[in-house]
Amino acid sequence: METIFSPHSLVIIGVSDSPSNVARGILENLDRFAFKKKVYLVGSKPGSLMGRQIFADVSELPEVPDMAVVLIPAPGLPKTLESCGKKGIRRIVIESGGFSEFGEEREGLEEEILKIAKQWGMKIVGPNCVGVVNVENGLTMPFYPLYPHETKKGPISIITQSGGILHDSMMLCHMANLGVNKLISIGNKLALDENDFLEYLIGDPTTEMIGIYLENIRNGRRLMDLAAGTDKPVVLLKSNRSPESTEIARFHTSALAGDDRVVDEAMKQAVVHRVDNLKEMIDSFKVFSLKLLKGQSLAIIARSGGQAVLSADSVYHHGFTLAPFSENFFNMLSEKTRTGVIRRTNPIDLGDVFDLNVYLEITEKALQEDKVDGVVVVHSYAVGRDSEPTKIFISSTAELSKTYGKPVLFCMSGHKEDWFEMREAADFPLFMHVDEALGALRHSYTHFNNRIESSGRHPGKILLNEKKDQIAPLPAGILRVDKVFDLIRAYGLDVADYRIVNNKNEGLDAAREIGYPLALKTASPDVLHKTERRAVLLNIKNEDMLADAFGRIKTGPYLIQKMVPSGWEMIIGGRNDPEFGPVILCGTGGIFVEIYKDVAIRVAPVNEEMARHMVEELKGAAVLKGFRGRFVYSDFIRAHVDNDEAGRGVWYRKRNRNLHAKF
Amino acid sequence: METIFSPHSLVIIGVSDSPSNVARGILENLDRFAFKKKVYLVGSKPGSLMGRQIFADVSELPEVPDMAVVLIPAPGLPKTLESCGKKGIRRIVIESGGFSEFGEEREGLEEEILKIAKQWGMKIVGPNCVGVVNVENGLTMPFYPLYPHETKKGPISIITQSGGILHDSMMLCHMANLGVNKLISIGNKLALDENDFLEYLIGDPTTEMIGIYLENIRNGRRLMDLAAGTDKPVVLLKSNRSPESTEIARFHTSALAGDDRVVDEAMKQAVVHRVDNLKEMIDSFKVFSLKLLKGQSLAIIARSGGQAVLSADSVYHHGFTLAPFSENFFNMLSEKTRTGVIRRTNPIDLGDVFDLNVYLEITEKALQEDKVDGVVVVHSYAVGRDSEPTKIFISSTAELSKTYGKPVLFCMSGHKEDWFEMREAADFPLFMHVDEALGALRHSYTHFNNRIESSGRHPGKILLNEKKDQIAPLPAGILRVDKVFDLIRAYGLDVADYRIVNNKNEGLDAAREIGYPLALKTASPDVLHKTERRAVLLNIKNEDMLADAFGRIKTGPYLIQKMVPSGWEMIIGGRNDPEFGPVILCGTGGIFVEIYKDVAIRVAPVNEEMARHMVEELKGAAVLKGFRGRFVYSDFIRAHVDNDEAGRGVWYRKRNRNLHAKF
Repeated sequence: METIFSPHSLVIIGVSDSPSNVARGILENLDRFAFKKKVYLVGSKPGSLMGRQIFADVSELPEVPDMAVVLIPAPGLPKTLESCGKKGIRRIVIESGGFSEFGEEREGLEEEILKIAKQWGMKIVGPNCVGVVNVENGLTMPFYPLYPHETKKGPISIITQSGGILHDSMMLCHMANLGVNKLISIGNKLALDENDFLEYLIGDPTTEMIGIYLENIRNGRRLMDLAAGTDKPVVLLKSNRSPESTEIARFHTSALAGDDRVVDEAMKQAVVHRVDNLKEMIDSFKVFSLKLLKGQSLAIIARSGGQAVLSADSVYHHGFTLAPFSENFFNMLSEKTRTGVIRRTNPIDLGDVFDLNVYLEITEKALQEDKVDGVVVVHSYAVGRDSEPTKIFISSTAELSKTYGKPVLFCMSGHKEDWFEMREAADFPLFMHVDEALGALRHSYTHFNNRIESSGRHPGKILLNEKKDQIAPLPAGILRVDKVFDLIRAYGLDVADYRIVNNKNEGLDAAREIGYPLALKTASPDVLHKTERRAVLLNIKNEDMLADAFGRIKTGPYLIQKMVPSGWEMIIGGRNDPEFGPVILCGTGGIFVEIYKDVAIRVAPVNEEMARHMVEELKGAAVLKGFRGRFVYSDFIRAHVDNDEAGRGVWYRKRNRNLHAKF
Repeated sequence: METIFSPHSLVIIGVSDSPSNVARGILENLDRFAFKKKVYLVGSKPGSLMGRQIFADVSELPEVPDMAVVLIPAPGLPKTLESCGKKGIRRIVIESGGFSEFGEEREGLEEEILKIAKQWGMKIVGPNCVGVVNVENGLTMPFYPLYPHETKKGPISIITQSGGILHDSMMLCHMANLGVNKLISIGNKLALDENDFLEYLIGDPTTEMIGIYLENIRNGRRLMDLAAGTDKPVVLLKSNRSPESTEIARFHTSALAGDDRVVDEAMKQAVVHRVDNLKEMIDSFKVFSLKLLKGQSLAIIARSGGQAVLSADSVYHHGFTLAPFSENFFNMLSEKTRTGVIRRTNPIDLGDVFDLNVYLEITEKALQEDKVDGVVVVHSYAVGRDSEPTKIFISSTAELSKTYGKPVLFCMSGHKEDWFEMREAADFPLFMHVDEALGALRHSYTHFNNRIESSGRHPGKILLNEKKDQIAPLPAGILRVDKVFDLIRAYGLDVADYRIVNNKNEGLDAAREIGYPLALKTASPDVLHKTERRAVLLNIKNEDMLADAFGRIKTGPYLIQKMVPSGWEMIIGGRNDPEFGPVILCGTGGIFVEIYKDVAIRVAPVNEEMARHMVEELKGAAVLKGFRGRFVYSDFIRAHVDNDEAGRGVWYRKRNRNLHAKF
């Protein structure tokens, strides 16, 4: 893998001296970025380009290049790969498009390529990608133009399923004065996928944070395990969220997506920082280039009262709190202000102070406060007069932040004429709006709290837990209801007493054992929607009613079951997600699961602590805990997740007050 | 009011030639903006400043200025105002701080000022503000520096409760190449408030859209009526949303806020476009400087597949749909692409096309499509090579958008070196990210749909509806339960049969009339939490149980009431909001109102159509409409809002299936 990022020589296949040739753009980039290693050219029309010979075939090359970058029409790929194989080239970046993203009929071509790759032991990047950018050595494979003056070297590496996003994220990083390290366009990820590159970047010493753009997830569990196993922040932009987008994405990189909600929960589980758009990704890179936030208490220092109030709103909106300041701090503050009248609150409104040195002093004092975990500075300045002092304020704040090991979010609206100058004043990110800064800051605290503080409890550890396989594997298809009950019991949960019977007489016998009232339903696996088919009768109180009920339900066999009083319904479900495998759902049941979507989801297996969290994150958990004295299910949660004797039957416990006892 | 924005002469009170004098900043601004009218100076130390005489008192001025701008320590205000009054000055802008925002002890000072203003018939702006900016005539009252080169004249006017926000929003507009018209800092709004200025701006011919920043709302109903009565878009940023922020805002502009959720709903009712931060306000200004969106069907034209997929996600996320294209359109598209292989989908992925003229052609064809209401262009370009073509693409797109009367949202990440140049390429807004563009575009469609399309049904008209006052006014305090029932019945809703009794014997008699089963509760207005006090007994089935029940509940009188079967509980409530007056709430009742917060809120009065919408916007409405065949309450909504015979008793209708009939 190292060779893909640092080849000693490479060949570009598909080059010509025509101005409309796309592959020549690769060479132009390599030259602009002063890539030092040997670059060969191969093209169907021999000749020369930019002082380099164009060979007719790789077989003619004077040495065996470490890597081939191929940009030729898709149908020619197998022949070219064969040539590369024979020559001894073992790493191929296929930039050509026109594979499975064009339709199923092209899938055969991909299979052929895979076969050739296997035969020669080749590593393949793409197809349908723009390859790799390594800012460390100038390796710049995209065919569209990139420029060194738009590329700052730094700690951010990005894996992306779209070559366009590689370009746009590079530009966005550059405009935010963020430095990038390695960027990988994985395209259709025929062979190497996001996980292969993630694993590499986790081990890469110059990569400090990792951004990923994906349209589908190849192997969600490996992604989770990799991400959970590193302290480097991993930020994911996963698109293709709605069924409608999936259609588009299929055309784009042949991506078929799973359930977006599962992605959400799985990423939380592995502490991957999911963002909704590129803007949020850039904001989170900014935040991760600061010190991590180790608590939730913030100090706000604002240039105006309006910004102070907006910031306070934002602090609470994003789940933080405003730190209390010490007496000393306020006394210092009073000395610094013109009138001596400053409000002893957090946020601090600097409206009365005009000296930027004082802002810096106040920022430092705030950082020194024990109860302050991070500082938000909302600055505003007059262009010209205060431009230079503002630059000093920014760069000094950057130093203070390092000194005190706490993040400072520096926010200001700025001015046209020194917009980028301010961003370049220090290796320190600027934000335009407090709201976007604090939204991104959540990731910092989440990261510290889950990855650093509780590093012994990495979700990775949980994922690797041995699975206790006491339950026999289930047959495919829809289970008969009694098999379902067996399964529930096997997991230690009680089921109301029942029998499967074939006719009225067997039913009457069973009823004498179970006792009335009863429910009678069809147990036929062919009847899926029992209620709609009128194959459910409830509250059968005696033998006459039961006999009558058998006359009404046409299809046997029958389920006869003890009626249980109504309770607070919960749902526990599981399914096999195409991206993450077995997934568990727990929710407030009945109609509420569908109307209020009050569910918690985890990638299995789930241990007791995780199960407890699942129940607790439900809004309906308030009812289980005894909401307004109406339900006293204080031991419900414990009973539910322990699966022990105490837990049996909780699904059927009666609620102790009628919901309507209100007037 | 016109004079406040266009005075023929003004005096600045509080000026000195000291470099630290704050008021001199006002004069510097007026000079920079070449304000043409006479400006006098008054200060405690006579002398001169910037070639103008400083008078010791307004009484010495050679004429009566139209307006005084005062920036002196607060305690000196009454004396100065008296002088102004005597001189004949009738418009005063008080920029000084130090009033009620400093605490209640300063409220007396405000009252004194109000008294003087009333005595002399003065109009007062502020105190604690930075006054007015009128870009039309160069009137620039803030004391902090502003510059003409940072101020583009245009259609946006802004009312703000914070002088800092006035500055920041001016700068943000400028950086987005948005032109501003009039900006008003209303400060503590002692006399003139947001509504006075809103009314003025609605009538102002050069103002086309209005932004408002508020920390509290003075008179919500007037705000609603004003906003509902104009077709100009009104965008509101209302801060001070959490109880914690309120504390800060009080210090800042002495603002005390009402319920934020009520603000949300009231603004929707009046089609005021509420935003969450300044960024969203700027984005909505951008969108409102485009043609209004008249439908929800969008075309996406993206430079890369990744941006296409992200855009499709965003389209659905923001409630829009992707327009279907005609055969003709796709055929044209195939001709334009290099390989002729373009996916016949919306979004269009331009990955294969490199000629920007073709992008423009495709954009025009998309605008021509009948089923396309608006177009999103996601562009990306190589700096240098494609900079000029991109500028032409932008300015031509601006023209096309006007020609076809449909909005085009032009999005691109851009480059440092031509960032602002691109923004100045045309009088046409650029967005960085599709997600923020589409978020703002919602406002455009809402505006068209509610203001323009249904202009006959302005909420304003509804607000002015005559109130039918058949119900006698209620006494203050907590009503006895039977009075509550009377009230419910007076509005045409049924109540389960009940009696108020004083003892067991009266109870037994009442029970014979009502019939069993029964509920018995205390009817004492002193017992608020009946359940907690064990003063509720349900399901009393016979005389013995009833007699026993009277022994258990200690406090009389008693409510004895027919038990009704459980149903689907709804809540209707009302309260007096400090900012909006009477407000109506309707929700999915019982515990769900508190756990799932499934409620609809409107400022009263509510007519039948509004009531129907309230019920329909509840998630729980699915149950009322017959969710999954379990509830068949198809006529519930009608019954509920009509308040006619058909509606009686719906609160107590039985649900027809047991929630737990699931296995």
